[in-house]
Amino acid sequence: MLKRYLPILEWGRSYDRSVLSSDLVAAVIVTIMLIPQSLAYALLAGLPPVVGLYASILPLVLYAIFGTSRTLAVGPVAVISLMTASAAGAVAEQGTAAYLEAAITLAFLSGIMLAILGLLRAGFLANLLSHPVISGFITASGVLIATSQLRHILGVSGGGDNWPEMLGSIGASLGTTNPWTLAIGIPALAFLFWVRKGAKPALMRLGIADKPADMIAKAGPVVAVALTIIAVIVFDLGEKGVAITGEIPPGLPPFALPSADLSLIEALWVPALLISIIGFVESVSVAQTLAAKRRQRISPDQELIGLGASNIASALSGGYPVTGGFARSVVNFDAGAQTPAAGAFTAVGIALASLFLTPLLFSLPIATLAATIIVAVLSLVDLKTPGRLWRYSKSDFAAHVATIGITLIAGVEMGVIAGVGVGLLLYLWRASRPHAAIVGRVPETEHFRNVDRHDVFTVPHVLSIRIDESLTYLNARWLEEYVLARVAEKPELRHVILMCSAVNAIDASGLESLEAINHRMGDAGVGLHLSEVKGPVMDRLKRSHFLEELNGEVFLSQSRAFETCVADNGEAREPQDHYMARGLI
Amino acid sequence: MLKRYLPILEWGRSYDRSVLSSDLVAAVIVTIMLIPQSLAYALLAGLPPVVGLYASILPLVLYAIFGTSRTLAVGPVAVISLMTASAAGAVAEQGTAAYLEAAITLAFLSGIMLAILGLLRAGFLANLLSHPVISGFITASGVLIATSQLRHILGVSGGGDNWPEMLGSIGASLGTTNPWTLAIGIPALAFLFWVRKGAKPALMRLGIADKPADMIAKAGPVVAVALTIIAVIVFDLGEKGVAITGEIPPGLPPFALPSADLSLIEALWVPALLISIIGFVESVSVAQTLAAKRRQRISPDQELIGLGASNIASALSGGYPVTGGFARSVVNFDAGAQTPAAGAFTAVGIALASLFLTPLLFSLPIATLAATIIVAVLSLVDLKTPGRLWRYSKSDFAAHVATIGITLIAGVEMGVIAGVGVGLLLYLWRASRPHAAIVGRVPETEHFRNVDRHDVFTVPHVLSIRIDESLTYLNARWLEEYVLARVAEKPELRHVILMCSAVNAIDASGLESLEAINHRMGDAGVGLHLSEVKGPVMDRLKRSHFLEELNGEVFLSQSRAFETCVADNGEAREPQDHYMARGLI
Repeated sequence: MLKRYLPILEWGRSYDRSVLSSDLVAAVIVTIMLIPQSLAYALLAGLPPVVGLYASILPLVLYAIFGTSRTLAVGPVAVISLMTASAAGAVAEQGTAAYLEAAITLAFLSGIMLAILGLLRAGFLANLLSHPVISGFITASGVLIATSQLRHILGVSGGGDNWPEMLGSIGASLGTTNPWTLAIGIPALAFLFWVRKGAKPALMRLGIADKPADMIAKAGPVVAVALTIIAVIVFDLGEKGVAITGEIPPGLPPFALPSADLSLIEALWVPALLISIIGFVESVSVAQTLAAKRRQRISPDQELIGLGASNIASALSGGYPVTGGFARSVVNFDAGAQTPAAGAFTAVGIALASLFLTPLLFSLPIATLAATIIVAVLSLVDLKTPGRLWRYSKSDFAAHVATIGITLIAGVEMGVIAGVGVGLLLYLWRASRPHAAIVGRVPETEHFRNVDRHDVFTVPHVLSIRIDESLTYLNARWLEEYVLARVAEKPELRHVILMCSAVNAIDASGLESLEAINHRMGDAGVGLHLSEVKGPVMDRLKRSHFLEELNGEVFLSQSRAFETCVADNGEAREPQDHYMARGLI
Repeated sequence: MLKRYLPILEWGRSYDRSVLSSDLVAAVIVTIMLIPQSLAYALLAGLPPVVGLYASILPLVLYAIFGTSRTLAVGPVAVISLMTASAAGAVAEQGTAAYLEAAITLAFLSGIMLAILGLLRAGFLANLLSHPVISGFITASGVLIATSQLRHILGVSGGGDNWPEMLGSIGASLGTTNPWTLAIGIPALAFLFWVRKGAKPALMRLGIADKPADMIAKAGPVVAVALTIIAVIVFDLGEKGVAITGEIPPGLPPFALPSADLSLIEALWVPALLISIIGFVESVSVAQTLAAKRRQRISPDQELIGLGASNIASALSGGYPVTGGFARSVVNFDAGAQTPAAGAFTAVGIALASLFLTPLLFSLPIATLAATIIVAVLSLVDLKTPGRLWRYSKSDFAAHVATIGITLIAGVEMGVIAGVGVGLLLYLWRASRPHAAIVGRVPETEHFRNVDRHDVFTVPHVLSIRIDESLTYLNARWLEEYVLARVAEKPELRHVILMCSAVNAIDASGLESLEAINHRMGDAGVGLHLSEVKGPVMDRLKRSHFLEELNGEVFLSQSRAFETCVADNGEAREPQDHYMARGLI
């Protein structure tokens, strides 16, 4: 029990020196990568850069205690930062204390929600986001984030929660572009794009081995940060209108209490819930991918608790919502992290940085951070998925495109809600119009297939219908209409067999429809039989009166049902009497 | 095309004198029944009684033109009247002009919504209300309505939108009970209860035939109305504090324009949508039940248009939301109505009544109307369903009980929303944790069943898994976990067969999971096969790259898949090479 809620007790027992050294190496690499990223994502969230550092200390320690993934790296991530900016921006002005308070409250609410969902074992809720919706949301967020950072590269003011607003505000202020900022931003962008693809091969050509070359390339943003800081100092760009980070108060994160203002909580609980769900889905996807590579397992319900604890810790230490990020987790994994202790060591690294490195970051240009973000998020934009979905499934395509469109036009929160909504509506629509087939026997087998697709054997007085869906309230009305319409087409009919191999459940509404069908078949003197009813479904039917009232038999296999019905030529008596006489059912 | 939208063109062509006389007889009977009922339901909706008459004229004519049911009788009904009272009461005080305007606007909005849903062919939305939710809602509404009318029997003031409020306000004013009102109300209640069950047998004992006895018994409320009017006049009860209907302006309904006040529309659109859906579900259920008895059919999408036109007509003639009612439709059907023309004739009857009968209704006690309502709605309360659902399905029971509880405690609107919400959540929860079974061959057949339930044949190096659910985004995560966990349990495994007889669809998320499983099986040197993939599913898989990448074969039948895999003893080569060598897939 305790082990379930504290996975650290599991891996902590076998912790030894070799694992320690692997974890330490990974922690150093991730720390170097995390410093510019944390600053950049705090900027994206509209917060002082130091808040990004605060959000990268305590949350990592808490995840190390409660999380189940061995290699997930928790901290600020792009999409959640954008969602934070959108939610906090709706209740306060950027740069005010109220804005920071809103961000902290979001982290706190989200932490509480995640922990409660974890205790309720409600990890399944994350299933409401389908792959097409998630990938559409991430693509659109990538576009939104990159667009929102453009103004920092140009050195102009601007804002907006959605694409038209952002483009409009950048367009309106293009005239005020600062050439010095551009002179920092464009080379930084170019360098970072090159580092992403070209640095590793270049390093390998210099004779550096595959793995170290990869690690050095991952440190590219640190090089960009260092070079542009030097450029700002040497050319005194701060005086020439280039936005720089400015003074960051050195020191450890302050202890903060989240707001107890009920009206703030009322305004923020919906965005906090969306942040929780999106954060959870992103984190679990990363954690599962990495766990599978090493044949490890994670527990989604416990992950909710781990992320909940991290977010509560983030709020209490002046941070904002965090989750498991893709890029940093992959770096952590590749660098050889063996246990969540690597995360705790990373936290120590970031804490040291916020104690001692912050004076060095005074002259860091905002344009460099913006370039870091743009390069990172443009890799999220996935242009292949729409075509693949279009070919495979029009309804998945519709959900994907709707999510992209609504996210771009109406912002991230509406995008998630609309994506879930469209996905559900399409799902329910399909569930309410299921597929069914008239089947016949494949010659010389006991196998039954669709008469329209296969060359099969049938007889006029027996109709076999295979129902390709569970019978639930969503399609109960359909079932009645479908069966009665098929029966009405065949006046010579004496037996109807419902082949239930694909009926995985029958709920109370489905049962009522079956009862209605049975009643009408009885009136018409047609026997209603069921075949291949699954165990769990049969168990449940036995608890109703349906089987007693059934106007025919339940057969183990469709083949036996078909043979029995074919053999009954119906000359002797009415089917109903026939079954009653045989004392069946 | 025109016939689809104007069903009157269909039945109107073959209209003759014998149909006319049947329709006329039915219309007379329904008119007599409808007059007290319309007055009573208007009272329940908190409106002047005459509004009930207005809502029973034009809407019937419009339904006769656009509706597809031959025998549905449209007009004010109990549940919709209660919902109207709740929605209009939220924006205005009962008895004011604003309240009436709100009721008219509700009818108009609801009419527009129904018509639009009809044009969009969105009848399937009604499926979101499962039978347990509908029956729970109707039971709870019956209790609420009966409670709300108690005060008229007692002659006290009171109000409230939910049960605790209603009981509280009646309890608080019990001391002011008017004995004269009670002296009218209690006998009226007793008489109407007796009429419902005892009148028909009594009449038949007097030698009246079955059918006419039934019809006379249905006119019981008219007798109660007449007797209590006489009592009020004879004993001058109006002076003794008995609430009476008072002056009803005689004449035809006035032409009214619905409000164009945007803030009113904003406040009313959600209740209007709920009224539309509940009204539609009630009406379609009644229409389908009656149509089935005469082997006729209705079109749910066209019913939306018919009800939409009726509600728009109701709004334009000063009425409030209407729908097809159960009691009156059954009377119409039993009285021999053949076509919707019976409804149009009923409209003429009601119009004549509002022209000439209203002076007679001056002294009608409100208590009599309340008694009519109580007797009618208590028959809606269904005490058997909870036990039946509990035995059959705990989740259906939960949805039923949640709907009853929330409707009683939080009112009708929250009740419907919560019912749909709980039903959906339970559905999605089940869909995200499907059933799957390891199967083996039933000896001497080609049939495969669950190893845990049947005595079947299996071999250690072949694992057959029957997946009992469509593979959708709701369970994509589950599928991966389930299959990989089963495979991990069996180190000697060489072949996994996924038996897809119950897989009715595979969406893009499900496909991704299959691809992931295939990839992992490939890594582990295990062949992944599919069997009994349905036609529509296979068509779709062919449009992806999955079949090319599949690490095994797709078999028509599970039996052939099993034989092939059993025959491969794996001594010669790795399964992947094996298939590549054979050039399969």
